[in-house]
This record gives sequence, C-alpha cells and structure tokens, in this order.
Amino acid sequence: MARVHNFYAGPAALPLEVLEETRDELLEFRGSGVSVMETSHRSKEFDALHNETIGLFKELMGLGDNFKVLLLQGGASLQFAMVPMNLLGEGKSADYIQTGSWSKKALKEAKLFGTVRVAGTTEKDGVFRSIPKQEELDLDPNAVYCHLTSNNTIFGTQWRQFPDTGGVPLVADMSSDILSRAVDPAPFGIIYAGAQKNLGPSGVTVVAIRDDLLEKCSKDTTTMLNYHTHADKNSLFNTPPCLAIYILHKVLNWTKKQGGVASLEKINDAKAKLIYGAIDGSNGFYNCPVEKDSRSYMNVVFRLPTEELEKKFAGEGLAAGFLGLKGHRSVGGIRVSMYNANGLESVKDVVGFMKDFAAQNS
Amino acid sequence: MARVHNFYAGPAALPLEVLEETRDELLEFRGSGVSVMETSHRSKEFDALHNETIGLFKELMGLGDNFKVLLLQGGASLQFAMVPMNLLGEGKSADYIQTGSWSKKALKEAKLFGTVRVAGTTEKDGVFRSIPKQEELDLDPNAVYCHLTSNNTIFGTQWRQFPDTGGVPLVADMSSDILSRAVDPAPFGIIYAGAQKNLGPSGVTVVAIRDDLLEKCSKDTTTMLNYHTHADKNSLFNTPPCLAIYILHKVLNWTKKQGGVASLEKINDAKAKLIYGAIDGSNGFYNCPVEKDSRSYMNVVFRLPTEELEKKFAGEGLAAGFLGLKGHRSVGGIRVSMYNANGLESVKDVVGFMKDFAAQNS
Repeated sequence: MARVHNFYAGPAALPLEVLEETRDELLEFRGSGVSVMETSHRSKEFDALHNETIGLFKELMGLGDNFKVLLLQGGASLQFAMVPMNLLGEGKSADYIQTGSWSKKALKEAKLFGTVRVAGTTEKDGVFRSIPKQEELDLDPNAVYCHLTSNNTIFGTQWRQFPDTGGVPLVADMSSDILSRAVDPAPFGIIYAGAQKNLGPSGVTVVAIRDDLLEKCSKDTTTMLNYHTHADKNSLFNTPPCLAIYILHKVLNWTKKQGGVASLEKINDAKAKLIYGAIDGSNGFYNCPVEKDSRSYMNVVFRLPTEELEKKFAGEGLAAGFLGLKGHRSVGGIRVSMYNANGLESVKDVVGFMKDFAAQNS
Repeated sequence: MARVHNFYAGPAALPLEVLEETRDELLEFRGSGVSVMETSHRSKEFDALHNETIGLFKELMGLGDNFKVLLLQGGASLQFAMVPMNLLGEGKSADYIQTGSWSKKALKEAKLFGTVRVAGTTEKDGVFRSIPKQEELDLDPNAVYCHLTSNNTIFGTQWRQFPDTGGVPLVADMSSDILSRAVDPAPFGIIYAGAQKNLGPSGVTVVAIRDDLLEKCSKDTTTMLNYHTHADKNSLFNTPPCLAIYILHKVLNWTKKQGGVASLEKINDAKAKLIYGAIDGSNGFYNCPVEKDSRSYMNVVFRLPTEELEKKFAGEGLAAGFLGLKGHRSVGGIRVSMYNANGLESVKDVVGFMKDFAAQNS
C-alpha cells in the first residue's frame, strides 16, 4: 500500500522527511558506531542532542530563560496528576475550566490533591459545543493556577483566544495544538504536551514550567513525579525515552525549516478555512456541531444526515486513501485531524472527496 | 565509523537484525500506509502488535494466566514509587533487600508510602561487593512483599539464586538481567524492567503482576499510577509508547528465534566464564572486587593497578572499537556490560584486547 493521507487524531501524521531521515540514520547515530537506541544517555552525542532539542523547543515557542523545559514520560495523563501533586496542598486552590473529556480527566486527578474549583464549563447534556467566553468564567483571583485544555480533540473545539485570568498563571494542556500557531507565553505558568500530534512519536511529554511556579512546587513529592527532580537533573535523572527525543528533535528542526509557528499558522488557517467552508457550503449535508468561534483548527468534527452515511463516508474515504476519518468512539460522527504535518494539499484532497461524496449521496 | 562492539550499560546493544528490520519498515507499518509512529493506538494493526508483544513476553518468561503484563512508561524509577503506592498503606509492611544503588533508590521511595524494613544489606563503607546469603537475611513472614534488585549494573553483582522468603511474594527489579536466564516465576508477585538492556529501547517499562497482588492494590491511587487502571485497560488507558513497544516486539521475537532464555543463558554463561577467567588468570593485573558467587553475568566490573591505566584501557579500547568500557561515574574502574545482544564473539574480542593490554602494560 502506498503512503496515505493520514487524518488520525494521534498518534498522527509526521513529516515524511523526518521519517526518511530516521530510517537512514537508524543504524548509526552521529558517527558513534551505534544506533541512537543503543547509545548511553550519558554519552556526549546524546547529551548534545538532548540539549539541542530543549533549545529548539524554547526557540520555537518563544520561551525566555524563565522557563525550564522538561522531557518526561507518561503523556498528558500523567501531567493531570503531576501538576496538582506539585502545586496544590493545604490552603491552596486551583481553577479548572471544563471544555471536554481531557479537562474532565485533569479535574478528576486534581481533586485528589487539594481544593479545585470549576471556573467555567460549556457542558450541556454531556457534550461540549463551545469554549467559554470571558464573561462566562468565574475566576478565583487567589487560585494557584488556572488549568485549561487548549484544543479538544474529541469535541473539535479550541481556545481561539486565551482567557484573561488577571495574573493567575495559566496551566495548559496543549497536547493537540502546540506549535500550530503563535502563542504569547507570558500568561502561562506551565505548558505541557504529549508529543504524538505536532511534536513527534508517542512516548515523550514536553513540559515547560516557569521559574516562579517551579519554586512553588512541593519538595516532598515522590521523586519521579517531582518537577524539581527533572529540573535539577535536566531531565536526565533516569534514562529518558532517547529514541522519542531523537525524533522530537527532528520534528522541531522540520518545524523551524517551515518558517516556525508563524508560517505553520498561516497554513493551518488556510486548511481550516477550506474545510469549514466546505462544511458550511454543503447545504446542510455536512453539519459541524461546534459554535463558529470555538471551532478547532486541528480536529474538524462534523456529522452527516445519518449514521449510515457516516459509516459509508469513512469506509469510502479509507478506500480512497484517507485514513482515520471516524469520529472518536465516545461521540461518533466524522473527524478530520489535520496537524502540522498534514499539508494544505491533503486537506484539499479530502475536501474534494467530501464534495464528490455529498453530490453522490444528497 | 563502522558499527562497534557496544558494551554500554544501558541503553545498550540491540540485535542488528532488529535495527535493520525497524529501518526497513519505518515508513510503513504492516501495510497500513503509515509508519508505526503515525498509526492510532486504537487501530487494529497496533492492537494486534500490542497483544502479540504481551503474549511473547509471557511465553518467554513462562508466565501463567495468573500474571497480567503491563506496558508502561517512566522506567524502573517510576516503579520504585508505584509498587509501594499500590501495595503499602496503614498497617502494612514490606521488606527491602539492599544490594546497590538501585535498591537504595527503591527503598527511599517506599518509605514515603508505608512501613519498610531492610531485610538484608551487604553495604560496607558505601560499597556492595556481594549478594546476601540466605542466612544473612532477616525476613518478615508478614511482609506484603519482599523487594530485590536481581542484577546490579553499578557494582556488578547478581542474585545467582533467589532467596527463599517462605511464601512472601518477591517483587523484583529485573531491568538489567531479564530474559538472560531461566527464572521460575512462582515466587514472584511483581517483576518489572525498564526495556533498555535486554528488551529494547528506553521508553517502555514492562511490569508483570500476579493476580493476587493486583487484588491487594489500592484503588485510590492517582489514575496513572494505579496498576488497576493499566490492567483493566490492557495498558491502553492512554496513548502508549507505540514505537518503543514495536521494537520491544522485535527484540522478543529475536529472543524467541535464538531459542529463548534457555539458549541465551548458555551463551551468557559462556561469556561470563570467558571474561571472569581472563580476569582471574591475569596474575592480578585485572581485579574483580566482587565475591565470586555474587558476580554478575551481565555487568563485569574490574579494576586495573592504577586509575591511569584504567583511563588508558578505556581510551585504547574505544579506539579499538569497544564502546562503553568506563565504569559507572560513582565507582570508577572498568565495566563490560554484555547483555543478550552481545554475542560470544564480541566478548572473545574484548578478552583478546584485555590480554594484549595486560601484556603491554604489566
């Protein structure tokens, strides 16, 4: 089978040149005589790669010296626990804004470690169709932090503009839209992301933590879940996921070569305009349940007139070389996930397929 | 540079055919049209790989249906916390046998979660030269479990025969000698191992937990550190480290093709006989500080007459194509780590180098 248009929600498409370079270098890493999987994480070759990766991430995100970047394991799901475990405790409270399944999971873990408030939610009858507006939020000015999920893969919503918390540090799970657009890091205390969308393969989790929040972290937490451990040891307290970091390095390099987030944002805007245009111009054959100003530019969810047509659409799409069009099992429907590695051409192609399908099945 | 003899302690040598297969298949995974890094962890292709991996591990280890095998992240270091977090608590006590740096780290974490006893230690003046004998142990018959480190990479010792705990389940960190020899799983309640020695690349941690211990695990632990979460969801609660699991699968297949642990044990025995023979037959030029019946078959540590000669040995060894001969930074000296992927030939070659070096520098 030839390589296909990959619209999986994550793990997701990676740039072809990243895969090809990884393949070509797989038996030998930087003249060391061994594969990157076989080299010591204390070797000078790996150490250089590790620090370059952190440097590239900081550069692309525009993070100043007041941020430490950690390369961890366990995915965003482990960060759901680590954030409150490190920052909550007696007499401390955090705000959690609810916009979907992932923010609910983050809230659930936080409740184990201290006082948490729901500072806003758009849940109605078990589903989320929008991002809360500023005036819909009930923010605590004394919160240690305010947690949000920047993009919601399942419900297809995205914070198009981050809320004003009046100085309370934002803690953001950016797993599914990191590096897809320019973000001013100033209001953020912690930004974390599992790699498997815009950063690389699954198995490495990037955490950027601002110095003032790091200082507030408890020192009593169990070693591996303590941000101090990883900040103090530059994420080399124990063996890191070397191969995943190596591919992350390549994806960051690729991102830089594309012109960084400013250039990718333009392409992502064009992709979103194209596919939402096709949905809104389909005379109701395709229907996006998300409010217009909350629509995700990464995960486009929509419905067809019947579930049977949705099944047919996903099946014929797969046969035509479009992988991963089925919506998340919890909500059904169709989902087109289009991260940085999905170029404008692949979105043009799927939009062409959508138009043909609508014409044939209306 | 040509591929070299890799004696790193971990990440360590992998079988060449595993690397070559990974390279050849990197752009397309099982006819899916995308790389294994790009496929959904919910896809039928990945699901099959995942279950095959677990099945192969159980088969090679001789684990019955009473063991659940989990594929996790965070390395053995995270297991140091997860084991007591799940199994200790009020009124419960665990035994910890101390044989080196890793067992000390495991003990340190356990103290955060309940009562722990040191049931034996061979530490003298900060170093460990042996494994405790049965009569040197002070075991608690009421302990929830008894923890040990099966092989000690830094001090070069190994449990050649596991202790009799009178029915108290052993919990073993087998990171550095798993699948290197036949082990009767009957006395073990939990066996865990970071992959980066005999199993694959860093970034995946294998945990085998017996049903009766799983039943004793707390249900209140934070979600990602709760063994129930991963057992209930077959290690697919969140996105697993797919690429690392894919290579683990290949290493397990390779292990099976070698004839399994019984065949590899014979080779490992021959390798150990060869190199310890060279050390003991060097008229004291090489000196292994470890008691003979505690010597590791995986990590062979030895000293030369002076630190200068050790430096020269490691430097000339590297120039001759032997990578990673320097001992761990905490103890100095020389270390030859020879896991399953290091064949008898590579040990013959390094022993030849040792003989030449001794002749030239005695």
